[in-house]
Amino acid sequence: MQTTMMDIPLSLNHILDRAGRLFPRSEIVTRLPDKSLRRHTYAQYYQRTRSLAAALLAAGLKKGDRVATLCWNHHVHLEAYFGIPAAGGVMHTLNLRLAPEDIGWIAAHGEDRFLIIDDILLPLYEQFKHLHAFEKVIVFPYSGEPVAEPFVDYEQWIASASTEGFAYAPHDERDPVSMCYTSGTTGRPKGVAYSHRSTVLHALVCSLPDNIGLSARDVVMPVTPMFHANAWGVPYAALNVGARFVLPGPHLHADDLLDLMQAEKPTMSLGVPTIWLTVIQTYEANPGRWTLPTGMRSIVGGSAVPEALIRAYAKHGIALTQGWGMTETSPLATVSYRTPELLDLPEEQMFARRAMAGVPVPLVEVRIVGDDGECEWNGEDVGEFQVRGPYITGAYHGLAQDPNKFTEDGWLRTGDVASIDPQNFVRISDRTKDLIKSGGEWISSVDLENAIMGHPAVAEAAVIAVPHPRWDERPLACVVVRPGQTVTADELREMLSKQFAKWQVPDAIEFIDAVPRTSTGKFFKAALRERFKHWTWTV
Amino acid sequence: MQTTMMDIPLSLNHILDRAGRLFPRSEIVTRLPDKSLRRHTYAQYYQRTRSLAAALLAAGLKKGDRVATLCWNHHVHLEAYFGIPAAGGVMHTLNLRLAPEDIGWIAAHGEDRFLIIDDILLPLYEQFKHLHAFEKVIVFPYSGEPVAEPFVDYEQWIASASTEGFAYAPHDERDPVSMCYTSGTTGRPKGVAYSHRSTVLHALVCSLPDNIGLSARDVVMPVTPMFHANAWGVPYAALNVGARFVLPGPHLHADDLLDLMQAEKPTMSLGVPTIWLTVIQTYEANPGRWTLPTGMRSIVGGSAVPEALIRAYAKHGIALTQGWGMTETSPLATVSYRTPELLDLPEEQMFARRAMAGVPVPLVEVRIVGDDGECEWNGEDVGEFQVRGPYITGAYHGLAQDPNKFTEDGWLRTGDVASIDPQNFVRISDRTKDLIKSGGEWISSVDLENAIMGHPAVAEAAVIAVPHPRWDERPLACVVVRPGQTVTADELREMLSKQFAKWQVPDAIEFIDAVPRTSTGKFFKAALRERFKHWTWTV
Repeated sequence: MQTTMMDIPLSLNHILDRAGRLFPRSEIVTRLPDKSLRRHTYAQYYQRTRSLAAALLAAGLKKGDRVATLCWNHHVHLEAYFGIPAAGGVMHTLNLRLAPEDIGWIAAHGEDRFLIIDDILLPLYEQFKHLHAFEKVIVFPYSGEPVAEPFVDYEQWIASASTEGFAYAPHDERDPVSMCYTSGTTGRPKGVAYSHRSTVLHALVCSLPDNIGLSARDVVMPVTPMFHANAWGVPYAALNVGARFVLPGPHLHADDLLDLMQAEKPTMSLGVPTIWLTVIQTYEANPGRWTLPTGMRSIVGGSAVPEALIRAYAKHGIALTQGWGMTETSPLATVSYRTPELLDLPEEQMFARRAMAGVPVPLVEVRIVGDDGECEWNGEDVGEFQVRGPYITGAYHGLAQDPNKFTEDGWLRTGDVASIDPQNFVRISDRTKDLIKSGGEWISSVDLENAIMGHPAVAEAAVIAVPHPRWDERPLACVVVRPGQTVTADELREMLSKQFAKWQVPDAIEFIDAVPRTSTGKFFKAALRERFKHWTWTV
Repeated sequence: MQTTMMDIPLSLNHILDRAGRLFPRSEIVTRLPDKSLRRHTYAQYYQRTRSLAAALLAAGLKKGDRVATLCWNHHVHLEAYFGIPAAGGVMHTLNLRLAPEDIGWIAAHGEDRFLIIDDILLPLYEQFKHLHAFEKVIVFPYSGEPVAEPFVDYEQWIASASTEGFAYAPHDERDPVSMCYTSGTTGRPKGVAYSHRSTVLHALVCSLPDNIGLSARDVVMPVTPMFHANAWGVPYAALNVGARFVLPGPHLHADDLLDLMQAEKPTMSLGVPTIWLTVIQTYEANPGRWTLPTGMRSIVGGSAVPEALIRAYAKHGIALTQGWGMTETSPLATVSYRTPELLDLPEEQMFARRAMAGVPVPLVEVRIVGDDGECEWNGEDVGEFQVRGPYITGAYHGLAQDPNKFTEDGWLRTGDVASIDPQNFVRISDRTKDLIKSGGEWISSVDLENAIMGHPAVAEAAVIAVPHPRWDERPLACVVVRPGQTVTADELREMLSKQFAKWQVPDAIEFIDAVPRTSTGKFFKAALRERFKHWTWTV
């Protein structure tokens, strides 16, 4: 027998129509290059986004054509999120923090036809334009300066497009809507192409109360760049419920974010741990200058979240929730929350759980695979973390299937090493390559980093493996001390010896000025390994 | 180009695995026929449900075969919800409140192979068994009495099934999982067949914070029968988040529900307005006997919700939220909530909005079609309410497409008459057949009923059309007065004349003992029309 249900495809166009029709007065607040704020209503957004789609069609966009964006977080980038798919195109977000050669290579590999770019990023464009010829470069006059030939002025271009008789490009729900290249640390970047289906499903799942819990009352501030896994998919989810947007533009310094939070009072923000680390440090270093938005929830991901950071925000009534994901997983795959099993757990004990990756969200399956097959969820067995689901990638754009990335039975191999405990919480030990193998035993750099960052005098810490003549590898802790504070290597070792086995405690502790960052704000351990590759053991 | 996302079908089996694996200690509380409570954990539920699936396969169930249920709301019915689809079957919920002839006709039309039935409902089975021969009748010993031949004892049957090596039946996401016949007031009942896809999508949408908002902390009490549009899809959604279930079994009298609420403290309940009407009347007639569960949310639907009822519960800290839907819409299509447009509306003014059907939920499109095509959303233009979406039915099981039910461009014609106001709130005026046409003008019976039920001395009111020699039709108001109170027809007319045009106010007001109910607890106006069909006008 057959279902009697309608066969209606999941579609971003439905979310756009919903936003424009049901929530016309909801606001999108954008910070401009001069730090002033500009406000659009959803009604204006809806009109402008359809104009963008009409302009793309008039420019000859064909179904499946890629349109690149090189933009900060602002309303025009949000217009691209829905306007490009509305015309049948695929939005390809370019990561402005990559080296120019990489940006050019990625644009060429993606065969991007058009580029939408912020005027303030044109100097970057000049550095990679020789690597890929866009048919048309459409410049958003973000700074307010006039746009010069041969560039197309975004504002004039969409204003001249007629939406009369405009109709969304017909599509199947498995047609692609956006593309993002992983900022891989080994090999060339690889492209992930999200579909209408995967994007809508992810938007619904991440809006659920136990996950991000997005509602009409929310004021959403994505600090996570919109070129980084689509700002974790939250723009789609927030538009679907009519939330207010607060988009920080290029102003991501801690004091800029504190100013913005003070003015616009977000209820939900998202960013990597290092952003929140510098924000709380700046806040605490300037007593009385700002008031934090009490009650704000913050989804933090991209790398492990130290328990000390979660506790620091909790003191101000701000709940940091850890999510785990990657570009390939849309990205929300696990989230740390008070599950039914933990309803009676004292809040004090929840902090340790909040520092874990959490439990799989609906639609996502997880498993841990070790040398002997699938591991028990006993909190001890450690193996590769693998995931599967309708919004998880199963291939890379234009590449042959790689057994190092996908298993034969169709799971994504995340490259992370993890265990799952009897309460079903995933604990990421490390990236495979970040584990330290000492005397035949594994040491987790993440556990050591979190413990060291728990010391009140420590601002940041990154632990790497360095070769050792006797033990094969040993951990080296690179520590940044807070301004005006002091701590010695012996004091740190003494603190660590209370939590770790003797052989796990780093013999080598280096005090450095800052931990280098990747383009997405994560600790860039490869740079530290390079710096300390000639480390000489004195013992 | 193509998406790189995995092609993983949406599946109820994923929700079942999730419930069993992630939330093993969550509870399912069932009220037994003797009114005692029985508790199962999700771990036990998971095991029993997979045993049911294994038993069905061992009994020769083939993919797509229908398995009927004739059950109250309890854990075994919940086992059927997931166990039958897990084996590849289709759960066909039979409505125990229908006439035996109708139940038999529906089982025959659905070609149901097996029947799972409560032992306390066997007397009902005896009345329709001559109309359809089930291959196997599996009896749940709900009362604790032994099950006699030729019936199969559910407990022994599933206990004897081995789940070793059990694997879920392979399926496409568009394969059916459950079937429900509409309790149509005209013509034969019609079957709606939900799929894995529609059921999972509905579960996600109804769990969103702005809709039902289901989370790990919830204690869910479905008073709505599980044979009525799958208890509004909430069992699927609640299991997905690990909520605690409180299932009232056959005990749906107001004092039974009040006892159960007092003992188990639900945070979310669902039922038709008439249930909540009798509950609040019973509660208020017995001061001090019960404490209502302050903070509980309640989704109310199935017929219009009087504003007076919403206000009565709000006084006790209980939020009644109106949802609109029908068997054909899975059912949640619209919900009344504080949208972004209404964030600043005083709570006092929200009451009127809460008495409306509300705004469309994600994935659902709505429109109003009048004689001249699609109506404006201006709050004045009235037409037929039509809906479309991936969990809305587009056909009836085994029937040819009927243009009275579906439009040529693929929308469901709901048969309700509605307007949509500039705040995008749907207001159902009436069922097409419940409108009163007086002197060429339409009068809404729903508006009159709600106004009359706002009078403190009125318990219930139903307004019907009766033939009139001069005006074609005129409204007749059938009013039930609260025990110990009095009100006259003149007093009611005087109250109504302040809100309605003179010609809209009913000349005829009859005081009756009770409003007859349909099998699903709605006002059964057809019975009133029959009773008053020979009404004689004295003016």
